[in-house]
Amino acid sequence: MKSILLTSILFLFAFSVFAQVKVNEKRIEQRIFELAEFGKNEKGEGQRVAYSQGDISGRAYFMDRMRKAGLEVHIDFAGNIIGKRAGKDPSKKPIAFGSHIDMVPNGGNYDGAYGSITALEIIEVLNENNIITEHPLELIIFQNEEGGLVGSRALSGNLNREALSQKSASGLTLEEGIKAIGGNPDRLEEVARKKGDLAAFIEIHIEQSKVLESRGIDVAIVEGIVGIEDWDITVTGMANHAGSTPMNDRQDALIAASKLVLAVNEVVNSYEGAQVGSVGKISVPSGAPNIIPGKVEMSLQMRDLSSEKIMKMFTDIEKRAEQIGRETNTKIQFENLNLGTTPTFASQEIRNKMAQAAKSLGITYINMQSGAGHDVQEMAKLGPIGLVFIPSKDGISHNPEEYSSPAEMANGANVMLQTVLLLDKDLILKIDNY
Amino acid sequence: MKSILLTSILFLFAFSVFAQVKVNEKRIEQRIFELAEFGKNEKGEGQRVAYSQGDISGRAYFMDRMRKAGLEVHIDFAGNIIGKRAGKDPSKKPIAFGSHIDMVPNGGNYDGAYGSITALEIIEVLNENNIITEHPLELIIFQNEEGGLVGSRALSGNLNREALSQKSASGLTLEEGIKAIGGNPDRLEEVARKKGDLAAFIEIHIEQSKVLESRGIDVAIVEGIVGIEDWDITVTGMANHAGSTPMNDRQDALIAASKLVLAVNEVVNSYEGAQVGSVGKISVPSGAPNIIPGKVEMSLQMRDLSSEKIMKMFTDIEKRAEQIGRETNTKIQFENLNLGTTPTFASQEIRNKMAQAAKSLGITYINMQSGAGHDVQEMAKLGPIGLVFIPSKDGISHNPEEYSSPAEMANGANVMLQTVLLLDKDLILKIDNY
Repeated sequence: MKSILLTSILFLFAFSVFAQVKVNEKRIEQRIFELAEFGKNEKGEGQRVAYSQGDISGRAYFMDRMRKAGLEVHIDFAGNIIGKRAGKDPSKKPIAFGSHIDMVPNGGNYDGAYGSITALEIIEVLNENNIITEHPLELIIFQNEEGGLVGSRALSGNLNREALSQKSASGLTLEEGIKAIGGNPDRLEEVARKKGDLAAFIEIHIEQSKVLESRGIDVAIVEGIVGIEDWDITVTGMANHAGSTPMNDRQDALIAASKLVLAVNEVVNSYEGAQVGSVGKISVPSGAPNIIPGKVEMSLQMRDLSSEKIMKMFTDIEKRAEQIGRETNTKIQFENLNLGTTPTFASQEIRNKMAQAAKSLGITYINMQSGAGHDVQEMAKLGPIGLVFIPSKDGISHNPEEYSSPAEMANGANVMLQTVLLLDKDLILKIDNY
Repeated sequence: MKSILLTSILFLFAFSVFAQVKVNEKRIEQRIFELAEFGKNEKGEGQRVAYSQGDISGRAYFMDRMRKAGLEVHIDFAGNIIGKRAGKDPSKKPIAFGSHIDMVPNGGNYDGAYGSITALEIIEVLNENNIITEHPLELIIFQNEEGGLVGSRALSGNLNREALSQKSASGLTLEEGIKAIGGNPDRLEEVARKKGDLAAFIEIHIEQSKVLESRGIDVAIVEGIVGIEDWDITVTGMANHAGSTPMNDRQDALIAASKLVLAVNEVVNSYEGAQVGSVGKISVPSGAPNIIPGKVEMSLQMRDLSSEKIMKMFTDIEKRAEQIGRETNTKIQFENLNLGTTPTFASQEIRNKMAQAAKSLGITYINMQSGAGHDVQEMAKLGPIGLVFIPSKDGISHNPEEYSSPAEMANGANVMLQTVLLLDKDLILKIDNY
């Protein structure tokens, strides 16, 4: 009872102090447009792949803005941009937030950019309102998110030296790329932080699907980021002459594969929840119109917040495959690629703060799982995390057609701002079981 | 009544004269083994692709055998090997027979070779029995059958000059290949024959499926060679993030394509008869495990002796595609590639002679359509044709595992020999509506 009373008092105090502190809607959109200029090609499309000239000049613009906002800015050895703002209590761990400004090839102007600009906006609003937080604040712009969370993996100690020789979308290797943006790959290990080094990390992003838009909800508070399991599937039948082999004497691997594609869909849809399963690739190696497919290769990827549910669905799919193999006289083999990422859960305490912030602002919210990966999942290895989504027009993402309105962006940014303030003030915040 | 009586007398006469004339079973198999040596690689597999060294040396061996059998042999300008044997009546059109000795890459020792060796065997048996036919006889070894009936198309006037620049499996263009085997591409047009130039052309081949083997029948008398129609199919959905896009909000082109593959199979199986339909190729252009397929490209090929049935099946498939498109929120488009070959019918009169020959020999037969193409279909443009199949172990074809037993080969060759003699003796033979 005592703690409820105390929380209530603290809540009322927080509400009264910060409720009027609001982000600048116009400034957010203005900065979306400004940042979009970097890497824009003659068709007006975004070409800001990590380590490209567009990325490098966009980073320079952003660092300039960060410095003008009074942050102490540096590029870490991994190439991440770090901006620091001191708190009243230097013994406290920093509250961190941010996103990325690199794009997929031919990408959109909101993915990553919106979260980065919101992070900067929080700093500006605090400055304008002369608010100094208890905790130090840290604004992080992760490098090469789209290439596989490269910058955040460096921070979480999860980017090994062998990965540096991988080619990035820019054509440069990660090592060359890190050098190109001002990092120092030789000292990569020094950027890795320890568990507990951050009080919290929060991020905001466009939804990348149209659940919020279609339901008319302002923001989603993310419960967690799904785990992913990938399999390669090989279906083996018997290649044969497509003219002389009667229909009833075929071992057509593509008939079996087609049944399996539909079975995957049925199995995934047979469970309650937000799980997804997809066959994204299929081919008949050395297939020809006049040869009955003897072999089909395909991919299977399933995602869910519950690893157990993924493996249950897989068991169902294996059973269906056995039956299909018998029916079609083919053999179906699965190989787990062991690329799997385990689910990442958002901190319940941070989710509560985000909900509290939304309520205080009159902003509607739902809970949602994130089917896509984000840097925040690497940050979860260092401390409690939280993630917010805003509506994205038609659910379009990784595409020049991406769009979120100024009002939608401001709603999300206000939730983020209030969450930072609530986290900062809440003395009972602890590193829970993330 | 009078004509039945006359036919019966002629039949008894023919039977009494030729029934004892038989092919040499051992010699046929011996020559299969001899020819197999040309183009055999270190693994013992057949590499006698047209225009290759194996093909050239195999042709030299075969021409030598033909000359030793007393044939007047030449290579025509298209590279076909022609062997002539004079008849008693030089005013009569030749009865022709033959096949090919080229192989698909890594092919078998019976496809083409068996028909060629049988043709030679017929000449040898006639020689050994001092039989001179009324009609001149012509043994034709067509060049590059496997590359698209190249030699027979030249003879039927169906190989245009533009086709000569196409690459063959040997790496040479057709023009270079024709030169390599002793032809003269500059004079290609001169080899084309006119309709009526041949009294008949007959061929024998391994079945390339296992209908005869599984039913325990000695030979098939082919009713005709199927027509073929080819389509490209494009299924258009919406590519999207396979993690963040909920299952109920997808336009997955591969779900639609899978339903269509199964619908093609169902439609083709819903008709009575020996028609076939196959999807031999499928791909998701720029597909990835983490992207919902936005586009699928696939092939459709249907074959039947009735062009009308093919088009009826296609109409059914189009209807199913429309329904699938509605169910899956995708668009399915068909493009006829206009590669279609029309069905070729064997001469009813020659089929009757083949049946008569088989009966006289105590050889069992069934009627069958040929789902695969053969040189005989080009010869049908010049005169009446006939085609016989013999069993092929497990229906294997275009593969080093091809096998037909000496007894199976002798049965077929005896039917061919008797058919030649019956055609030669039958004064009522006319060029019917082939």
